[in-house]
Amino acid sequence: MTAPLLPPLLESALRSLLGPAGYLTGADTDAHCADWRGLYRGRTPAVLRPANAREVGEALALCHAHGVAVVPQGGNTGMVGGAVPSESGDQVVLTLSRLNRVRDVDPVDMVMEVEAGVPLAIARQAAEAADCLLPLTFGSEGTAQVGGALATNAGGNNTLRYGNARDLVLGLEVAFADGRIWNGLRRLRKDNTGYCLRQLILGSEGTLGIITAATLKLSPRPAAREVALCALASVDDAVRLLHALQRHDAGSLQAFEYISGAGMDLVLRHIPGVALPLADRADHYVLLELATGREGADLAAELEAVLGKAIEAGWVRDAVVAASGAQRSALWKLREEHSESQKRAGANVKNDVSVPISRIARFIAEAGAACEALVPGIRVAPFGHLGDGNIHFNLVQPEGADGAAFLARQEDIMAAVNEVVRALGGSFSAEHGIGRLKTAYLPDWRGGAELWAMQAIKRALDPSGTLNPGKVLPPG
Amino acid sequence: MTAPLLPPLLESALRSLLGPAGYLTGADTDAHCADWRGLYRGRTPAVLRPANAREVGEALALCHAHGVAVVPQGGNTGMVGGAVPSESGDQVVLTLSRLNRVRDVDPVDMVMEVEAGVPLAIARQAAEAADCLLPLTFGSEGTAQVGGALATNAGGNNTLRYGNARDLVLGLEVAFADGRIWNGLRRLRKDNTGYCLRQLILGSEGTLGIITAATLKLSPRPAAREVALCALASVDDAVRLLHALQRHDAGSLQAFEYISGAGMDLVLRHIPGVALPLADRADHYVLLELATGREGADLAAELEAVLGKAIEAGWVRDAVVAASGAQRSALWKLREEHSESQKRAGANVKNDVSVPISRIARFIAEAGAACEALVPGIRVAPFGHLGDGNIHFNLVQPEGADGAAFLARQEDIMAAVNEVVRALGGSFSAEHGIGRLKTAYLPDWRGGAELWAMQAIKRALDPSGTLNPGKVLPPG
Repeated sequence: MTAPLLPPLLESALRSLLGPAGYLTGADTDAHCADWRGLYRGRTPAVLRPANAREVGEALALCHAHGVAVVPQGGNTGMVGGAVPSESGDQVVLTLSRLNRVRDVDPVDMVMEVEAGVPLAIARQAAEAADCLLPLTFGSEGTAQVGGALATNAGGNNTLRYGNARDLVLGLEVAFADGRIWNGLRRLRKDNTGYCLRQLILGSEGTLGIITAATLKLSPRPAAREVALCALASVDDAVRLLHALQRHDAGSLQAFEYISGAGMDLVLRHIPGVALPLADRADHYVLLELATGREGADLAAELEAVLGKAIEAGWVRDAVVAASGAQRSALWKLREEHSESQKRAGANVKNDVSVPISRIARFIAEAGAACEALVPGIRVAPFGHLGDGNIHFNLVQPEGADGAAFLARQEDIMAAVNEVVRALGGSFSAEHGIGRLKTAYLPDWRGGAELWAMQAIKRALDPSGTLNPGKVLPPG
Repeated sequence: MTAPLLPPLLESALRSLLGPAGYLTGADTDAHCADWRGLYRGRTPAVLRPANAREVGEALALCHAHGVAVVPQGGNTGMVGGAVPSESGDQVVLTLSRLNRVRDVDPVDMVMEVEAGVPLAIARQAAEAADCLLPLTFGSEGTAQVGGALATNAGGNNTLRYGNARDLVLGLEVAFADGRIWNGLRRLRKDNTGYCLRQLILGSEGTLGIITAATLKLSPRPAAREVALCALASVDDAVRLLHALQRHDAGSLQAFEYISGAGMDLVLRHIPGVALPLADRADHYVLLELATGREGADLAAELEAVLGKAIEAGWVRDAVVAASGAQRSALWKLREEHSESQKRAGANVKNDVSVPISRIARFIAEAGAACEALVPGIRVAPFGHLGDGNIHFNLVQPEGADGAAFLARQEDIMAAVNEVVRALGGSFSAEHGIGRLKTAYLPDWRGGAELWAMQAIKRALDPSGTLNPGKVLPPG
């Protein structure tokens, strides 16, 4: 089934603007029409590959003039289908991958300027080469691009210390729906000169404008790192440990990741070459990382002092501190292989939710009970960024059960989890965003004045609705 | 000269909604019609004092239905006339001062919920009583209110470590122009569920919505503080010292304030009871503060080590570290009395500008030279938040000259300073905002796509333009 063709005048104008390397059709568009999770498979008449911001703007202006919708795409690693074209086949994909220059890294101003299509890992390496840290980091950073990470306000493992993606951005260059370009690539820590467009565009998932470049805040590179895995008897104890570490030195706590006993069991069973470096299995674990650039810091001694007190107080049952880089990686692997191990264990349902930290223990207990009531034998395997209140509340099919039958219950399961989230003042999408997957939630969760304002802003900046339609906002 | 009356139907509806304590007229409105700097004196038919968010919304809805403009006002301590009604006398003032409850301080979630009319100092004390720190702090905090501080994205002395006001906000409650109310008082560190309205409202100076309450991020209270005053030979040396302190431990650097020799001279001459605690006068000073909650930290020893190296390297000529709370206050007084001493020294012109940190030395030199060329004998007395790249580039009339003649050159002087700021990639308003004073700058500095987007957003959220008209955006 081929996609509808573009209006011939538009096609010839785009081909002439972008050249053969900038205009893909047919089978060359396949990889751009589906998301990696396999949630959606759309069709497109063309994938546009502009080489710079000017070409992005001109391509947008042409599509806008012809009323053709444009779907911006970065590394296409999103979790919610925000970067794929619809099944209708009349939406053009615009990929930023050729805007791939690291323009500048400035270790005096602690700023870097990068184009949208630079893979996040490459941007991080460029910062490191100047002895600076770009703190944004998450699993898919080798493929994910800076522009997509900013457009979705990505989170990751270090937000506890450095904030979400939006907290790391000083300036943006943005192409709006009609092709006009805003050069807002400032390098200022303070600038109160009108509305904060930057923060509005960040997290808008390509529906208000296309990010073509950004200036990013850098941090000093930590000189020392310590990673530990702790076994605990309860989630409440994990929260106590979090607060003890924050009281000791909030500035050195880099990551504080929760791992459920069930989730760890799945990793140990399905991932070859990993082992639990503790004497006994536990119902709850925390993987934590401290880092500091402080001269003369004895981070290992500090960590041991806090852990020692926690063990004495009974909040921590057992703990192991990595003694080498290889051991640090081995501990992190136990956390990073969660998604893979759950995939191997069968069908699973993912919830990316957040609640206030004080309510995490209640959330995990109540949401788990609700899921077990729905599907007896369900494997409740939550994990994630406890320090931010963000839990990936993932659920794996009962052992030996039928995967398809389990997935048929997906809506019920997600609804049951979300009911608990909502009662506890939480969010149904902590870091993954709305994309296409979760637009139906908005009227109920973010309705009234909030949805009214979002829709008014969308109409103001994209009056003809040609920029990534069907994403973030529900139709109508 | 009395102000025009409101339409009688509107007046009676507002009186009936707000009661006698909520509806001021005549002389009772005087204090609400002028700004403290004396830049503007307007007139108003009534000052509305709603008691809660519902009343704010209903009052807005009534004014909106009658096409009457509303000027929101907090503590009225702004620097740019953003909270005063126009001279036309047909704009109603709405003060938030009766929304003055600290609703909740939660030391587990490290969050507080406060109403817009709470004075910032009261909010800070409430956080402190729960052993937490609300890091937003600036000179007028006894009068300034939380709502105004957020609406203007206030900066202050600790932004180097904790960010600007917008970085401290997790949630907002906002009344829009037509009276609809958005309850976005979330307490989540991560929430990617649509456009970030919160950040759009923050810093919009009451032109897009009226903040009625907020949830604010708290930090652990530092246990140890150290304050030092350093004498330096150049601004470049100050930047070197900044980087040395950041390399040592960026997380403990709380404030890094530049003081010019000329500015210090004015403080020593015009403020009774202050003294320079260093052997010799210098051309440049830095006032710095370290703070940490880290257990077992010997902050004094750390500071002495860094200062010792800086003295050895020649970047710091002399330094004094406060040995008591009283000495810390005395050092801070040398910085805090800058505005007052400059007022006593005669007519002065203020510029609140920022540039990238690497360009501060060049900025101060070039802007100073430009001013001296314009007005021989002008006293160039810059000071401020060097760690954020934000300098208050203030200029005092030549000694013995005519103040009025000096002020007649204000536009020329500001234009000369701004020309240097612009060439260096800086901002003409770092933390004071636009208000009414600086709207004329926007088309030139933030024109094109940026101003188009701001105007489109204003029309989207306030289509009839009744919310704080004439502020932030230029007319038309």
